[in-house]
Amino acid sequence: MALPRKVVLLNPMHSVSNRIRSAASSDELVERFYFASRYAERRSDSRICDFTFGNPHEMPLPALVESIRRHAVPRNDNWFAYKTSEAEPQSYLAASLSRELSLSFEPEDIALTNGAFAAISVAFRLLLDAGDEAIFATPAWFSYEPILLAADSVPKKVHLQNGSFDLDLEAIERAITARTRLVIVNTPHNPTGRIYSGETLAALSQILTRGSQHTGRPIFLLSDEPYRRIRFDGRGFTSPGRTYPWTVVTYSYAKVTLAPGLRLGYLAVSPLMPRAEREALRGHMFAAQMALGWCFPNAILQYALADIDALSCDIAALTTKRDWMAGVLEKAGYELLRPEGTFYMFCKCPGGDAGRFWSFLASRDVFVIPGGLMGAPKHFRICLTASPGMIERSLPIFAEAIEIMRN
Amino acid sequence: MALPRKVVLLNPMHSVSNRIRSAASSDELVERFYFASRYAERRSDSRICDFTFGNPHEMPLPALVESIRRHAVPRNDNWFAYKTSEAEPQSYLAASLSRELSLSFEPEDIALTNGAFAAISVAFRLLLDAGDEAIFATPAWFSYEPILLAADSVPKKVHLQNGSFDLDLEAIERAITARTRLVIVNTPHNPTGRIYSGETLAALSQILTRGSQHTGRPIFLLSDEPYRRIRFDGRGFTSPGRTYPWTVVTYSYAKVTLAPGLRLGYLAVSPLMPRAEREALRGHMFAAQMALGWCFPNAILQYALADIDALSCDIAALTTKRDWMAGVLEKAGYELLRPEGTFYMFCKCPGGDAGRFWSFLASRDVFVIPGGLMGAPKHFRICLTASPGMIERSLPIFAEAIEIMRN
Repeated sequence: MALPRKVVLLNPMHSVSNRIRSAASSDELVERFYFASRYAERRSDSRICDFTFGNPHEMPLPALVESIRRHAVPRNDNWFAYKTSEAEPQSYLAASLSRELSLSFEPEDIALTNGAFAAISVAFRLLLDAGDEAIFATPAWFSYEPILLAADSVPKKVHLQNGSFDLDLEAIERAITARTRLVIVNTPHNPTGRIYSGETLAALSQILTRGSQHTGRPIFLLSDEPYRRIRFDGRGFTSPGRTYPWTVVTYSYAKVTLAPGLRLGYLAVSPLMPRAEREALRGHMFAAQMALGWCFPNAILQYALADIDALSCDIAALTTKRDWMAGVLEKAGYELLRPEGTFYMFCKCPGGDAGRFWSFLASRDVFVIPGGLMGAPKHFRICLTASPGMIERSLPIFAEAIEIMRN
Repeated sequence: MALPRKVVLLNPMHSVSNRIRSAASSDELVERFYFASRYAERRSDSRICDFTFGNPHEMPLPALVESIRRHAVPRNDNWFAYKTSEAEPQSYLAASLSRELSLSFEPEDIALTNGAFAAISVAFRLLLDAGDEAIFATPAWFSYEPILLAADSVPKKVHLQNGSFDLDLEAIERAITARTRLVIVNTPHNPTGRIYSGETLAALSQILTRGSQHTGRPIFLLSDEPYRRIRFDGRGFTSPGRTYPWTVVTYSYAKVTLAPGLRLGYLAVSPLMPRAEREALRGHMFAAQMALGWCFPNAILQYALADIDALSCDIAALTTKRDWMAGVLEKAGYELLRPEGTFYMFCKCPGGDAGRFWSFLASRDVFVIPGGLMGAPKHFRICLTASPGMIERSLPIFAEAIEIMRN
């Protein structure tokens, strides 16, 4: 090898692209929590009380296992050939989603993806160029921001309404600029458990229509609905795709079947979208999915999709857990929001020091998500996928924690 | 809804981002071939002779099916919980890859991905910012260019050497500019079947070292090696990761197990990379994979990885198919390259009109990949995953085709 003519002195951080460094920096708290906190040390011990991520803490649904095993048996040479958005699951979903959302989907409206992360990432790349702005409200899911940053797009955060955590429509309208290309709505909402009403969504639709007219190009709406089927107390659900034509819907089976390790979801174009734009999005979906890393589901999951679509975790059991925990925590003095949907419960940290509160719980092997990871540093999130045993063991510790925080 | 104050008149194509339109335009020939050609009409009929994509045309490996079914049975609550790059497959691969490539991988060097598309897409985003240039040689795999374009990066294409299809090192050196950040090497090479020698790779390493010194930042090398284990005639293999320290390796199990519908692969950082940069890449891998759409493999495939790593399609049978087809085609007058690796055979179209040649074959239900899809319009690619029955039926048609093209 020739002797260097110029010494290469590098900042090793600059080996990594700006966009991924920026995504990583936005994701830093979550990564530190998952890989380098007391939770990271303790999470593999089944004796802890784990209220953190939306992970299962009971055995998988037997029908899910059975369907995967059955569809792993090849019936022809092509069984494990390349799969894109296959015709059969697309048609199935067009029919099923049309019934569920009261819209008339065509099979081509549905792009099958390996989970909602991929659906969201594809939607962002499909709709946004570098420098384009996407508005969303906080507290919010951890990952909208880093996914946008990795796409060189610009996250514009507004707050949800204080207390009610309803959408702050005026704040959204104020945030619209000439570069606004997308507004993200997550309903039922993680972490607050709110389901937005048809009236709120209709008012949002008016704002986005006005905004589109001002800027001269449509502002799209991404309706992220992975908790759509997890609703309490007989509540209804309206998809924003029914009230605003320029909507794309993202969905994942990870939540309703409690199997986030499988990776099955979709991105759907609202059938209300004007025909020319609807065709343009559909016509570019394959290229977007291919060019982002072949974001199509595994062959077996595509065969099993109709089976999986019929499955659900036990909503009655979730309701019991919600009411049990909410009752005991409220009685102990916690301020919390009983969720309308999702399997999360959003609570205010007692006392002024959220870090001290979290650490006390962690010292007793009770783990919750600090609200700071979701843009709400005075709150914490409880995930109700915890087992009844975990709930039972945690309740006296939660009661002790509030006592300590009061002193 | 308020009346529009300004009429929204849109070019519906502009609903889609520039970068995805540009990726789609680069992918247009492939998409048209797959979705809207005579091949698209005929491909589901098992009576055709299908020499196109690297798809299986015989039943899957029984051991593959057995392993997936076995690992689909849950052994604990977390069986289908979120999976990232799990410790067990990472450690397994570090050991297995160290033996295979004669390098000392640590588990953290290995990022598990849902296939090589994802590994490549993650590598591009991790290393390249918008405007950064990546050099690769044509003929080449269809998808490097659209994946780069979707990432707002700049593909810089050079030619392989005429006839030998060896790397043209001078052309690569000439293509290096201040914005060059990455050189892609695909060995064994799709579509030519060439395996680059240790000497060639050492010379390339010198060029990239000089280039890095000139530009003041390292030029990385992406070694895309999905065909690494598919080699003929006892040929050896040198990974560029052994000769050039700033190398990342991408791999997929799709080829060697003939199961591209499953989606399992990885991105590995060369252990020769200077420690600080190696740590920087490893430390940003999670964020890159998450922010690109959770590019981790499905839980079941992670459990099955050690089993899958031990499997291979029948290389002896592939060799027989190569020699059988090559012998008959050469005797008929075809000019072709007997592949050293991969399951492709790259042939010159007889006569001057490649379109007419392809259409004749297609009219007889023999389908090959037109070289134009890979930057080599005078050639065509045969995929040797075709069944022996397909080969047998096709040979008289190939013979007829060359006769017709001569007249």
